[in-house]
Amino acid sequence: MKNNDVSIIGAGLIGSLLGIYLSKKGLNVSIYEKRPDLREQQYAPAGRSINMALSDRGWKALDKIGLRELVEPYVIPMYGRRIHDEHGATTFLSYGKENQAIYSISRGKFNHVLVDEAEKHGTKMCFSHICEEISIADTTLKVVLPDGTKEDRETDVVIGADGAYSSLRDAMQRQTRLNYKQEYISHGYKELTIPATKEGEFVMDPNALHIWPRGEFMLIALPNPDHSFTCTLFLPFEGEKVCFDKINDEADLESVFRTYFDDAFSLMPDLAKEYFDNPTSSLINVECYPWLANKSMLIGDACHAMVPFFGQGMNCGFEDCFILDGLIEKYGTTSWELVFEKFQKVRKSDTDAISEMARNNFTEMRDSVANPRFIIRKKIEARLHELYPTEWIPLYTMVTFSDMKYEDAYAQGRLQDEVMDKVMEDPMILQNWQQVDYAAIISQIETARMV
Amino acid sequence: MKNNDVSIIGAGLIGSLLGIYLSKKGLNVSIYEKRPDLREQQYAPAGRSINMALSDRGWKALDKIGLRELVEPYVIPMYGRRIHDEHGATTFLSYGKENQAIYSISRGKFNHVLVDEAEKHGTKMCFSHICEEISIADTTLKVVLPDGTKEDRETDVVIGADGAYSSLRDAMQRQTRLNYKQEYISHGYKELTIPATKEGEFVMDPNALHIWPRGEFMLIALPNPDHSFTCTLFLPFEGEKVCFDKINDEADLESVFRTYFDDAFSLMPDLAKEYFDNPTSSLINVECYPWLANKSMLIGDACHAMVPFFGQGMNCGFEDCFILDGLIEKYGTTSWELVFEKFQKVRKSDTDAISEMARNNFTEMRDSVANPRFIIRKKIEARLHELYPTEWIPLYTMVTFSDMKYEDAYAQGRLQDEVMDKVMEDPMILQNWQQVDYAAIISQIETARMV
Ligand SMILES: Cc1cc2nc3c(=O)[nH]c(=O)nc-3n(C[C@H](O)[C@H](O)[C@H](O)COP(=O)(O)OP(=O)(O)OC[C@H]3O[C@@H](n4cnc5c(N)ncnc54)[C@H](O)[C@@H]3O)c2cc1C
Ligand SMILES: Cc1cc2nc3c(=O)[nH]c(=O)nc-3n(C[C@H](O)[C@H](O)[C@H](O)COP(=O)(O)OP(=O)(O)OC[C@H]3O[C@@H](n4cnc5c(N)ncnc54)[C@H](O)[C@@H]3O)c2cc1C
Repeated sequence: MKNNDVSIIGAGLIGSLLGIYLSKKGLNVSIYEKRPDLREQQYAPAGRSINMALSDRGWKALDKIGLRELVEPYVIPMYGRRIHDEHGATTFLSYGKENQAIYSISRGKFNHVLVDEAEKHGTKMCFSHICEEISIADTTLKVVLPDGTKEDRETDVVIGADGAYSSLRDAMQRQTRLNYKQEYISHGYKELTIPATKEGEFVMDPNALHIWPRGEFMLIALPNPDHSFTCTLFLPFEGEKVCFDKINDEADLESVFRTYFDDAFSLMPDLAKEYFDNPTSSLINVECYPWLANKSMLIGDACHAMVPFFGQGMNCGFEDCFILDGLIEKYGTTSWELVFEKFQKVRKSDTDAISEMARNNFTEMRDSVANPRFIIRKKIEARLHELYPTEWIPLYTMVTFSDMKYEDAYAQGRLQDEVMDKVMEDPMILQNWQQVDYAAIISQIETARMV
Repeated sequence: MKNNDVSIIGAGLIGSLLGIYLSKKGLNVSIYEKRPDLREQQYAPAGRSINMALSDRGWKALDKIGLRELVEPYVIPMYGRRIHDEHGATTFLSYGKENQAIYSISRGKFNHVLVDEAEKHGTKMCFSHICEEISIADTTLKVVLPDGTKEDRETDVVIGADGAYSSLRDAMQRQTRLNYKQEYISHGYKELTIPATKEGEFVMDPNALHIWPRGEFMLIALPNPDHSFTCTLFLPFEGEKVCFDKINDEADLESVFRTYFDDAFSLMPDLAKEYFDNPTSSLINVECYPWLANKSMLIGDACHAMVPFFGQGMNCGFEDCFILDGLIEKYGTTSWELVFEKFQKVRKSDTDAISEMARNNFTEMRDSVANPRFIIRKKIEARLHELYPTEWIPLYTMVTFSDMKYEDAYAQGRLQDEVMDKVMEDPMILQNWQQVDYAAIISQIETARMV
């Protein structure tokens, strides 16, 4: 059967979801994953089991192939941000309307579910298979088998779902004229834990994403089904003030936590051990183009790894699968090149937009969120959205609770920002925000849109 | 002797010049070069022997270590551009003042001279040694020896002069948080030849860089000491009109050359053979930062490969050597990290500037140069420079015939461009350019500089 053999590199979240999609289309799908089978062992290495926020675009991609019910038992809804100040006082800021939430789910568990499902639909899972080299001209993989021997595997198409450090992208970089850009931000992250109480209860509100915004750095926490929280500490690698380079022993660590995260500190009995055992990871942004070369194509983080501050990396990769699937329905698989070409054309501007929004959102999370002006601004926007649900949709809502093109959301968001900047110029806005002339704002945004 | 063992990767133009510089400082320099010794065989593979334009920055770096006399016998001065129109008519446009020239030199010959000289000063040349991997943390090279065996070589510092596809940069990309960007332009190039007459004479004016500018594409030719010209054809890889993809047989080729380069065509007896035998090469722009990691550093094309349209890639790499040498004189070699740190700090903005100017100059060469308005504009600028030699220096002159910082040259150039744009708005300028009020232009540029 010509054109039917699909090899996916990487059984991460995107590769395994894509496996399900393509197997359901009747294609012969093999996935090569360099790690061992995550189901046979304690998969997630300590300090690397970040949990994810799943939102509408992700759900939509799960829905299309009927996976919602399978995933639902593992998620915890978060209806907003709970902001912790230096004194332990908290403020709650909704993400959207009452029933709108993003959903905390463990990466490991989620991956497990998707791999099971892929196999059920006939995807051939090849764990502990390292795809060492790809020959793009003849669509052949050189695979290192679990016993260390190497084998060439011919295939009709290759899809690289092999993440931010993609081997397929490396091969493209060497074998084709790939435009490529990678950028590290100055901050890294480290995973920590807030355990459940002895009685197995949550120690904080479980239905929120907790943030300790501190200007140049921050701590966040997402709830787990076992009633613990997984925390992520974001600090600059180096610098004059608080940074990973300047925390060298328990005294340094305690001093930072007591000063900036005192309420969290009291909930972290294993802080020192975790801090010094867990790796400090870096955060990379990757852009490249084209995404295809001959009959090989990139998807997910492999072509658009972004910083995690909009919680969209996985959701965006899932949306990739949804869109690719639609293109296969439209154009069939007799010409994969055509499908791939359409895919990159429709998708590139959107992934560029969300990458940029993700970078911008870092400032919002670690900095603005702690600012009373910011909170009022969000409240005005929420009220606008309530009064004029289609005329004014906050950027966060467009990105998180809709499936409009990221590019369009970003453009709308910038227009709205300009209008809101003017609204916030009123020196009395913190006092008078409830008396703002909402109709006037809407007419301003409508004028702006017509220009 | 601690800190004295310097390993350079790559014996290209930059690596070999650097070898001379550092050997003269009394350091133990080894250069690892993956290709065989260019002096023992017919080095330059056919169609890859591009000749280079050497200009002031390059000469300055040669002068500092007394190499001018050694190089001079191999160069041919080019005092300006000779522009060929579709009908074979030509116009000459000086590069600068009367005695100012850029110098054509064969890359192979030049490299040969520099390698000889490096050896003479004690550089250990290791040809056919592939530097396969660099361990940045412990400054160790894994080298593949000529017999295929591998060896680890410890060293105090590593300098990667290994070009646009640098292995040291690859290692940094995998081992450190390197920000990296590579971009291919849509055009490629192919080398061709205009041979000398049977009597061994030049068939065109030898003291010019010949250009056939044709909008989206162009042909150029530089003179060789054997009285031939080496031509470079720049075309888009693919497209609707004239491009490499659409020239598939001799008939296509002849039709393109007869239509666009008829006078050159009649001088190229081996065109078809050369065209179809010689490779089509791509043009890459590379930017990255930082340039150093621990005790390893990049130099030349390895950290700033640029498109060749300003003829500065090599000159800029030579200037790198000159500046690095100055920093070693200032700070010594007890702390290479300090020297490297200073080097990248002072140099990055300049290499960014020349890369951008090189991209911009492509339009100038293939397009504007054929335009009468452009020629008049250059003449006005030349006249301004004559009348006000320090107040108005054309961009080309600042880049090519001075050693002012590229960044400053670029900034000045943009200011001057704004003023010239206004001058050119005069609808009668082509007629009246000799009556232009030069003093007024100078007062405009002085105002612009003060803002
Ligand atoms: C701290 C952090 C928090 C995040 N939070 C969120 C969030 O809340 N919401 C959200 O939507 N996104 C989030 N993301 C982004 C999300 O993690 C990624 O977008 C997503 O995991 C990308 O999935 P992927 O399958 O494309 O790549 P990966 O998950 O990286 O999977 C790639 C797979 O390919 C395998 N592989 C690689 N090379 C080879 C090879 N040569 N041969 C065989 N196999 C290979 C790897 O072993 C891996 O299993 C976050 C990211 C980070 C870093
Ligand atoms: C068409 C064209 C025209 C140009 N014209 C001009 C011009 O007129 N004027 C000008 O100033 N510049 C010009 N340039 C730019 C110029 O060619 C480069 O800037 C210059 O050659 C860079 O020298 P380099 O030594 O840094 O790199 P390279 O010349 O690329 O040398 C790198 C060396 O490292 C070796 N190497 C690579 N990897 C390894 C490894 N792993 N182990 C061992 N050895 C290795 C390579 O074999 C090579 O010899 C032009 C470029 C092009 C493409």
